[in-house]
Amino acid sequence: MIKTVSLTLPTLQDNTADAERLKDALKRKLKAGAVDIDLDLLKTLPEVLRENAFRVRCFLICDDNRWRVIHVSRPEDPAPVTGLAIDLGTTRISLRLIDLLSGAVMTEAAYVNPQTAFGADILTRIHYAEKENGLSVLNEAVIDSLNQWVAGICSENHLEPGDILMLSLAGNTAMTHFFMGLNPGWMIREPYIPVVNRPGFLKAAELGINVHPRARIFIFPNIGSYFGGDLIAGILFSGIHRNRKPSILIDVGTNAEVVIGNKDWMIACAGAAGPALEGSVTRMGMLAGPGVIDGVRIDTETGGFSVHTIGGLPPAGICGSGLIELAARLFLAGMIDTRGRFVASACGERLIDDEGIKHLIVVPGARAANGSDMRISQIELDSLVRSKAAMFSILETITALVNITFEDLATFYIAGAFGTFINPEAAIAIGMMPDIPLERFTTLGNSSLGGAGLALSLDAGLAEIDRIRDRITYHELNVNQEFMNRFSAARFLPHADPERFPSVKVPVKDNGDH
Amino acid sequence: MIKTVSLTLPTLQDNTADAERLKDALKRKLKAGAVDIDLDLLKTLPEVLRENAFRVRCFLICDDNRWRVIHVSRPEDPAPVTGLAIDLGTTRISLRLIDLLSGAVMTEAAYVNPQTAFGADILTRIHYAEKENGLSVLNEAVIDSLNQWVAGICSENHLEPGDILMLSLAGNTAMTHFFMGLNPGWMIREPYIPVVNRPGFLKAAELGINVHPRARIFIFPNIGSYFGGDLIAGILFSGIHRNRKPSILIDVGTNAEVVIGNKDWMIACAGAAGPALEGSVTRMGMLAGPGVIDGVRIDTETGGFSVHTIGGLPPAGICGSGLIELAARLFLAGMIDTRGRFVASACGERLIDDEGIKHLIVVPGARAANGSDMRISQIELDSLVRSKAAMFSILETITALVNITFEDLATFYIAGAFGTFINPEAAIAIGMMPDIPLERFTTLGNSSLGGAGLALSLDAGLAEIDRIRDRITYHELNVNQEFMNRFSAARFLPHADPERFPSVKVPVKDNGDH
Repeated sequence: MIKTVSLTLPTLQDNTADAERLKDALKRKLKAGAVDIDLDLLKTLPEVLRENAFRVRCFLICDDNRWRVIHVSRPEDPAPVTGLAIDLGTTRISLRLIDLLSGAVMTEAAYVNPQTAFGADILTRIHYAEKENGLSVLNEAVIDSLNQWVAGICSENHLEPGDILMLSLAGNTAMTHFFMGLNPGWMIREPYIPVVNRPGFLKAAELGINVHPRARIFIFPNIGSYFGGDLIAGILFSGIHRNRKPSILIDVGTNAEVVIGNKDWMIACAGAAGPALEGSVTRMGMLAGPGVIDGVRIDTETGGFSVHTIGGLPPAGICGSGLIELAARLFLAGMIDTRGRFVASACGERLIDDEGIKHLIVVPGARAANGSDMRISQIELDSLVRSKAAMFSILETITALVNITFEDLATFYIAGAFGTFINPEAAIAIGMMPDIPLERFTTLGNSSLGGAGLALSLDAGLAEIDRIRDRITYHELNVNQEFMNRFSAARFLPHADPERFPSVKVPVKDNGDH
Repeated sequence: MIKTVSLTLPTLQDNTADAERLKDALKRKLKAGAVDIDLDLLKTLPEVLRENAFRVRCFLICDDNRWRVIHVSRPEDPAPVTGLAIDLGTTRISLRLIDLLSGAVMTEAAYVNPQTAFGADILTRIHYAEKENGLSVLNEAVIDSLNQWVAGICSENHLEPGDILMLSLAGNTAMTHFFMGLNPGWMIREPYIPVVNRPGFLKAAELGINVHPRARIFIFPNIGSYFGGDLIAGILFSGIHRNRKPSILIDVGTNAEVVIGNKDWMIACAGAAGPALEGSVTRMGMLAGPGVIDGVRIDTETGGFSVHTIGGLPPAGICGSGLIELAARLFLAGMIDTRGRFVASACGERLIDDEGIKHLIVVPGARAANGSDMRISQIELDSLVRSKAAMFSILETITALVNITFEDLATFYIAGAFGTFINPEAAIAIGMMPDIPLERFTTLGNSSLGGAGLALSLDAGLAEIDRIRDRITYHELNVNQEFMNRFSAARFLPHADPERFPSVKVPVKDNGDH
């Protein structure tokens, strides 16, 4: 929070020290019980106060009912006051630089988590962390990369890293532990215990982050090893915890995570729950970035494909949301059947055979970025179908658990750090999302980053994050017979029971062409 | 505070993280609202908990209603848990190492404040601090010396500096500022404003102190530039803030400071208040230490002197309390008169003339440590008389201010970092202290160090220190005509009005021998 305060001037009758004079003025202004000032700031406080006739602008953070003054300057100081939101994904790290004076987003950046070099998934990295120096290697990889990217985006924006006064970080529980240099080894052993649930505020410098020496970083709380701060940030961003009517939040990232609830209750479950889901959503696509296909159209008359890429560049790959749209278009065009198999007659020359596996050419080499055909294989398609089936089964399970139908839900929030924005129409067409009116869907993009961004301006409202955390009941997904029945039915496009998707016009049922 | 807690064991049903599990157990045990754990401690917490089956011993401090876990170990850990109390005097720094498990004093040490090399008095040092790098030089001098002494006393006691988990420091406002690296420049310019009144707890490592990396140091609050944490520590140690009946606390150090009051109110005034008092008490003597005279007897029959020295060594000097006793003995033996002048007839051969100034030989060279005569000059005696007059005038002024007589006071607490223990009988004989029954005097020695030592075990009771601070009304001593009248009358031994000191048998009034 930024506050400009005018202090009463010291006199022989009122000889309160500089620090307490400032604290008293801020306590009155903020109606705060306690205000703290770092020793480091005390060293320059007397001069700043006197150079500005005891009228100063303060940047404060609120940590568990105590305010902390991070910076004091002249009221009209033109120096920027910036905050950095971090979504610490297992695969990708996203940054958003925010002007804390105006609230405006100054820039965004994203890059591959350098820890992937030591293990693509969480489990491999946790094992790596248990080797000698393993934890330090993982910790330094992420901190070093962050420092490089922060230096880079600051330079592009004519800022110094020292202009960043506050940071917030949302990530899953293991990533957050690595970030703090904490060993998450007990998270993968029964009963799966993290080191800490509520890291709260830490000094950024203590973590080795090169920003303002007094900057603090807020680290989102987790509920346990399998429900991290990224999801709590997502809930914060969606706002479902404020609504009277129940809504649902679906986060399609490395895992499929679902939260259902309203202002009074929330139930959550995550998809890393058994062989049926293993590695499922992960394989859906590459990261969004320039040249990545995020939209596909198929001309049903000519069978011609037109793709939309990020930045309008020659296509170089496809992201998760693009893949969902591609599958939906192929299905609606009759090029894949209800079992997700290619229909040779409809695919025509686009369908080729490569070592016994069918591939569909999405973009011919002549138009692709690297000169080779961009193809999607039957194996990838099968993987997508398993993923969408898992997602739909989770949605059915969680709604059944709280005895709510899809129609009862006010809003379907779809978030995804992967890909860009999932097109709900496409997700319905393949039966990944239920067939409810499109206007009930709201896409959030990277809701973890969005929530981390919100946290930079919440101030005392950070208690809201703790309240979200405390209100969630985490439901362990049981992969039982009931779930497997749902999963089997959901492996059809859009579903074994097409009446559940009345808006989807199925062109080809099962062509038996396999 | 040291607490051993048994945590409930984690299960699949209770997957609270290690940090929160420990916090919850401590909150219940301490009935505390908030418990914090440093990131650094989180790094080893999972192993400590599991190696000890979730039953651990914790060392905690309480900082403004929040508890902080400093160290966690196995319940029967034989490693010592120690605290260090520091009296940061302008002239001398005193240390007391305390076993926090038993409360026992392990050792004490004292040494000359190395800042004296940059200025004997506070004012000179504040000016020095305003030179380029001056503040750093002063700060490093005291921190470096502390680290050396801490290493030394730890080694003597078979400890590591890392065994010190908590420190407390009491000092005057300027010394405390230097210690924290804060510039006290505005304290010597109207309206005399310190940087901070309540430094509270700081991380010792942040100040460059080599003790346990998570150790915290509590720095006593001040009331302003002229009423420091050393006096608040003294009040804490005396306990006058707990008594129903009013008492008085007199601290004879670099300044003469007086506090009068009880559990409901306290009035304080300090003696650095005008030309009459300038440099007065300061010049009274050297530091107490081996070979320093702290007691004197004069055989009235033979005129023979017998001196008592600290450690029974050959006399090397005299401390403040020794000087008061010497003056009292000389006066009662008729060797100085009521105006504080040597009586030649009574002094005999001990009295010599050196460049027109009379000197009395206290210890002949043959018996002194360095082979030279130990002498006291008329100038030193005059200085002592001014000092005692100032002290008595302050006592009269402050009691008059609150409309209390000396007889109304339950206890006269006499403290002094200088010298050792002032002998009340001697102080009465020269009219430094009022003539009330001897049993009402309580000598406290170094009450600042005593208070700092108490602070190590007060825990949540540290709030008591803040309450003391808030209850004190600081009375600026006006050196007006009334004060000067009192001062003039008090320049006689014991007083211009000997009826105010009925117990003192004045042997010689004014011998006119000057």
